[in-house]
Amino acid sequence: MGKTKKYCFGLCLLISVAINILFSINLYVGGGQWGEKKHEDSCQPVLSWSEKAAAEAEAVAAISCSGHGRAYVDGLVFEGQPICECFDCYGGSDCSELSPECSADADSGDPLFLEPFWMQHATESAVVISGWHRMSYRYADYTTMSKELENYIRKIHLLVGNAATEGRYIVFGIGSTQLLNAAVYALSSENSSSSSNVLASIPFYPMYKAQTAFFNSESFEFEGDTYSWQSNNSKNNEDVIEFVTSPNNPDGELKKSVLGGKTIYDHAYYWPHFTPITGPSDHDLMIFTLSKLTGHAGTRFGWAVIKDKDVYEKVLNYISIADLGISKDTQLRVLKLLKVAVEGDGKPLFEFAYNTMRERWDRLTSVFSKSTRFSIQKRHPLHCNFFNETRLASPAYAWVKCEREEDDDCGAVLEAGKIIGRIGSTFSAKDRYTRLSLIKSKYDFELLLQRLTELVLRENGSIQTM
Amino acid sequence: MGKTKKYCFGLCLLISVAINILFSINLYVGGGQWGEKKHEDSCQPVLSWSEKAAAEAEAVAAISCSGHGRAYVDGLVFEGQPICECFDCYGGSDCSELSPECSADADSGDPLFLEPFWMQHATESAVVISGWHRMSYRYADYTTMSKELENYIRKIHLLVGNAATEGRYIVFGIGSTQLLNAAVYALSSENSSSSSNVLASIPFYPMYKAQTAFFNSESFEFEGDTYSWQSNNSKNNEDVIEFVTSPNNPDGELKKSVLGGKTIYDHAYYWPHFTPITGPSDHDLMIFTLSKLTGHAGTRFGWAVIKDKDVYEKVLNYISIADLGISKDTQLRVLKLLKVAVEGDGKPLFEFAYNTMRERWDRLTSVFSKSTRFSIQKRHPLHCNFFNETRLASPAYAWVKCEREEDDDCGAVLEAGKIIGRIGSTFSAKDRYTRLSLIKSKYDFELLLQRLTELVLRENGSIQTM
Repeated sequence: MGKTKKYCFGLCLLISVAINILFSINLYVGGGQWGEKKHEDSCQPVLSWSEKAAAEAEAVAAISCSGHGRAYVDGLVFEGQPICECFDCYGGSDCSELSPECSADADSGDPLFLEPFWMQHATESAVVISGWHRMSYRYADYTTMSKELENYIRKIHLLVGNAATEGRYIVFGIGSTQLLNAAVYALSSENSSSSSNVLASIPFYPMYKAQTAFFNSESFEFEGDTYSWQSNNSKNNEDVIEFVTSPNNPDGELKKSVLGGKTIYDHAYYWPHFTPITGPSDHDLMIFTLSKLTGHAGTRFGWAVIKDKDVYEKVLNYISIADLGISKDTQLRVLKLLKVAVEGDGKPLFEFAYNTMRERWDRLTSVFSKSTRFSIQKRHPLHCNFFNETRLASPAYAWVKCEREEDDDCGAVLEAGKIIGRIGSTFSAKDRYTRLSLIKSKYDFELLLQRLTELVLRENGSIQTM
Repeated sequence: MGKTKKYCFGLCLLISVAINILFSINLYVGGGQWGEKKHEDSCQPVLSWSEKAAAEAEAVAAISCSGHGRAYVDGLVFEGQPICECFDCYGGSDCSELSPECSADADSGDPLFLEPFWMQHATESAVVISGWHRMSYRYADYTTMSKELENYIRKIHLLVGNAATEGRYIVFGIGSTQLLNAAVYALSSENSSSSSNVLASIPFYPMYKAQTAFFNSESFEFEGDTYSWQSNNSKNNEDVIEFVTSPNNPDGELKKSVLGGKTIYDHAYYWPHFTPITGPSDHDLMIFTLSKLTGHAGTRFGWAVIKDKDVYEKVLNYISIADLGISKDTQLRVLKLLKVAVEGDGKPLFEFAYNTMRERWDRLTSVFSKSTRFSIQKRHPLHCNFFNETRLASPAYAWVKCEREEDDDCGAVLEAGKIIGRIGSTFSAKDRYTRLSLIKSKYDFELLLQRLTELVLRENGSIQTM
């Protein structure tokens, strides 16, 4: 990108052949496995084995899909060509057909709002993996985690100021998802006689409950809401493992431990685009995910920052027993992405991300300000150490409340208005609430805003109910 | 590789600039995200955003490390340059220093014997991942598994003839490791009142026991050896989940179910390089891993072939709860590797792999034939449908027995001879046995053979015991 585009046809071919003959006679210098290649910076680099894959990747990326889809090198192929995968609500072989009655899908936390940043930084973020890259189970230091990647994780925390990592251990996981369960196992394993009680404060991310129930371990049990637990078991906080999600999913609130016992801090959303960074989190066990930092949910990469050596070793053991570590290909790509993320002291990435979220919140707030039927969470201004100014939070999700008494199934009300959200009971809250994702692509957000506007206009009688 | 190497200095630069001016004036055709690029096949393709990463990967690959190490793009960096990571027993900044008293490490099943194949197929196996590749949790069909990759998995099974996949479901996992446990959960979950009994036949891969014990589920319990179980519980085979590893790890035997109840077939080693392929395996639940097919253990990718829809959905649910699916980057790379694996109907890959293993076994057998102190497993000739001839198996591991009565700790005997194996009790067998890995790099194998030869020579009094 930003380079002069070059075209190479017949004349080029002739001259190129002549140059090659001239240079290969006079300047051929063999060496290394594939010969050492020298070139001037201003020349087109002379590539050998990576050239075909690079050309293939660029050719696929150049398929425009009318701007409403993507073609991928690993996508489905029709008549030898990769086909367009259309965004929601678009169809046709080139994704040019909009389905006018399509619902706005604001269900998933797919962080595609960051995709344009990576397209803008295509050169620095591309990665080439050779066929023989890291075939071993382990790195040269006998671990299954890249030390260089760990260094960049520490670097980005230091730069953002959102977590204390000095003197702490870091473990990688398959997304933060795997680490949530690994942490429960690590914290519960000391109690071999009785099972630990796993808790979270309503509304909470449903995976905590789903995992604990699914793995059905003799070592722990999900016991629901911290406040209910506290009122029934005021004296017993020793055998608890509390999940604290801060900022919270679904409502974006900065949270603290209620019970003060063993705590797992899920900091997936503790980045400057979603919340002012008030200072480095300094807890015993903190979990982060690439998904909500750079937007690469599909890469399945997360990490835990752990104070205690014994807990660290238990989490490490979990990862080893569960799947013998994280894909080396994934680690290589994450390294490349974090190298871009820390460029310019993180300003380009976080400014892009924050500005996108702030603009979305501005527009969303404007729509909801015209409604009495629907409300969204209050946002508090706080000083952000990273941006060095006081700002409102711009959470990943709107936590919508249907205010009318009869609207106790808010999800159904929104669905009638062609909006798909995630209903309150998913988060162990009331169905009077629904979560709307604000971090999907701009196409998803634009459609969501359009459907919300229509809904609010209908409420005010400006247009007739369909 | 196999291309004329080209060098581009001053003159090239001048001519290149001239050509660029000429062509960009006359032939500029914009379009697509980065402009559509056309070129003749015989021209150097004109690359833009992928060029830097490609040049970086090639530069690192060209660092020779004296042939006894590798530099990687994600390796540690010293003064801005990636440093060599030396193979075992080699040291120094360029890995040129051999440590003469170094032990041969034949412990791990790191399948590096296939690395040279991938270096020979560098062009076809390289992969370029753009910064915005597959950021979503899901593919366009709302799954977390690449359909195109699934197609290639079916293709390679059909081609090799080692597994029936028609009408079966396929689930991807983080290596076969994750799928072993997912399968236990899937098969046990029906018995909510009592826990299922998980079993395997001695000697068996230790992960079955380690996982079952670690996850400590109320739904299942590890009960050890199938034969012991059978003699004590002759009537109750309903509540069992039996692991059958075929070919077996550690001894390479083709195995069948002993108990005839629910069975998980671990077919990690059921490929033509390790065993004659006698026919397609046709069991209800079969697990495979990329690690022992292409040698990419570090990529952490495996798959299960499942007959029953209900079991399939349970395994899928496990993967989703455990970590929301497999890295898309990993899936892209695996696709690329399998595309190479199926080239020439699989002959180039499997002939390389089989020839390497056969040669190692020929040399190993020759050394052990001179010994009465040590023996290795017998290998049986079978007709291989894939190669269409009768061949001996060439297992991934030698299963060594110390024959002298006093040598009941075979691992210690070998260790005194500077050989590191994996002791029999790891596989719930006697320590009179030790597993030696034959699938590591040629350097590892050469050193192993040297140490074994020394040991056998000492046994025969040809050289003095140190």
